[in-house]
Amino acid sequence: MTNPTACLLIIGNEVLSGRTQDANLKFIATRLGEIGIPLREVRVIPDVPDTIIATVNEVRAKFTYVFTTGGIGPTHDDITAECVAAAFGVPWEPHPEAWERLAAHYARQDPPAEFNAARQRMATMPRGAALIDNPVSVAPGFIIGNVHVMAGVPRIMQAMFEGLAPRLAGGTPVQSRAVHATGMLEGTIAEGLGAIQARYPELDIGSYPYYRPEGNGVALVAKGTEPARVEAALGEITTFITELGYVPVQGEPR
Amino acid sequence: MTNPTACLLIIGNEVLSGRTQDANLKFIATRLGEIGIPLREVRVIPDVPDTIIATVNEVRAKFTYVFTTGGIGPTHDDITAECVAAAFGVPWEPHPEAWERLAAHYARQDPPAEFNAARQRMATMPRGAALIDNPVSVAPGFIIGNVHVMAGVPRIMQAMFEGLAPRLAGGTPVQSRAVHATGMLEGTIAEGLGAIQARYPELDIGSYPYYRPEGNGVALVAKGTEPARVEAALGEITTFITELGYVPVQGEPR
Repeated sequence: MTNPTACLLIIGNEVLSGRTQDANLKFIATRLGEIGIPLREVRVIPDVPDTIIATVNEVRAKFTYVFTTGGIGPTHDDITAECVAAAFGVPWEPHPEAWERLAAHYARQDPPAEFNAARQRMATMPRGAALIDNPVSVAPGFIIGNVHVMAGVPRIMQAMFEGLAPRLAGGTPVQSRAVHATGMLEGTIAEGLGAIQARYPELDIGSYPYYRPEGNGVALVAKGTEPARVEAALGEITTFITELGYVPVQGEPR
Repeated sequence: MTNPTACLLIIGNEVLSGRTQDANLKFIATRLGEIGIPLREVRVIPDVPDTIIATVNEVRAKFTYVFTTGGIGPTHDDITAECVAAAFGVPWEPHPEAWERLAAHYARQDPPAEFNAARQRMATMPRGAALIDNPVSVAPGFIIGNVHVMAGVPRIMQAMFEGLAPRLAGGTPVQSRAVHATGMLEGTIAEGLGAIQARYPELDIGSYPYYRPEGNGVALVAKGTEPARVEAALGEITTFITELGYVPVQGEPR
C-alpha cells in the first residue's frame, strides 16, 4: 500500500527575502511523517497572485495533500485566500461561520474593536471552504478540496495543524532509526553503505555528516514504513561500521 | 532596469523528513538581496533522480540564476551532480581539476587516505562544469549554464557562496527599511497601509506581527531598489501610525 503524499507551500516575501527564518517546514514535515503522509516537496513562493494561483493548481493535482502557510491576515499582502479561490475557480466570499466567529471576537474586546473591512477579509474565503479552527487568535484557516490553508505564525499554525491532524487520512507511519559514530568519514563508508541500501531498496538510508566541538562524525539514518526492515537495516549498518573499527552509538548525535 | 532573478533548490530527504532544519535559505536569500539578485522561489525536493532532473530543467528556464544545496558528497544518496548532468544532457565524467585537487588532498593526509571510488564521485561532474572552490573541505561545487551547485553543510555552502559572489552579475541592491510599534494591530492599520502600498506600487510593503514577552506588535517593512522611494514610503508609514496614536520605533524589533 502506498502512502499518501504531501506538498507544503510557504507563501510570503518575508521568507524569500531572508527577513524571516521559516519555522514551519520542520514541524509540518515531522508531524506528517508521524501520521504516515510523507512530505514530498516544499515550495516557498512570493505574494504574487499569478504565482500563487499557478502553484496551487500545479501541486494540488500532483500530491494527495497540499498545506499552505502564510498570507491569511488582514493586510494588503495577505492574498492567499483569494488566490486559492481563483485557483479553484470559485467565488471569494464571506464565510458565514468565520464571519460570525470574528464579529463576536471583536465585539467581545474591551473596548469593542471594529470588525472593519480589513478584518472582514479574514472571514472571506473560497465558496465551499470548511474551516480550520484557530484556538490562538480566532481567525480560522480553511480547507478546500485537498488544499489546507493555515496561518504563517508558527504558534497559530501548530494549533491549527493539531486540530486538523485527526481528520487527515494518513498511511503507515514512517519509522526512523539512527546510529552515529564520531571520527567516521563518509568517504570510507560510502561503498559499503551503498551496498546495504541496495539490499533494502524500499528504505531511505541517509548519511549525514555532523560537525561538533567534541568531534566530527557521520549519522546514518534508516527510514521506512516496515519497522522490522528498518531494524534489520540498522543492524547491518551497525555491524558494518563496527567492523571498520568505529564505535557506533545508537540514535542521532546530541 | 529589471533585476535578475534567482531560484534555490534545496535537495535532500533530510529536510523533507523534518530531520534537519534548513539553515541555507535565509543566508542565500539575504546575500542575494544584497547583490541585487532577488530570490523568487525556493523548492525543497527529495533525492529522487526524476524529480531533480525535471525540477532543474524547469527552473533553469524560468530564472536568471539557479542555486542548489545538498547532494554532492560521496555517498549513494549524493546524486545531485549526475542528475544535473542528465538535466543538461551532457556526460557525467571525471573533472580533471577537481580530480587533481581531491587526489592531492587525500594523498596529503597522515596517513594518506585512499582516493577511492566513493571519493572519486565528488570529482565526477557534468562535462563543461566550472568549479566552485571549497576552502573548507576541498571537494568543489560547480557551475553549468546558469546552475550553481553547492554543498548542503552550511559552513561549506557559505564559503562556496562567498567565493562565487564576485562572479555573479547582480542588479540594483534591494534596500529595506523597517519601523515597528508595540501594541499595534494589523486590523487597525491594514486599510491605511494598503493605501500607501497603492501609492508605491514598485515597492514591497510588508506587515509582520511579532510576539514578544515585552509585548506584541507589528513590524512594517518597505523594500525596493530606489532608496529615495523606500525612504519616502517609510516616512508615510511612520506618519500614518503616529497619527493613529502608536509610538513608532525605527528598525526591526529586537
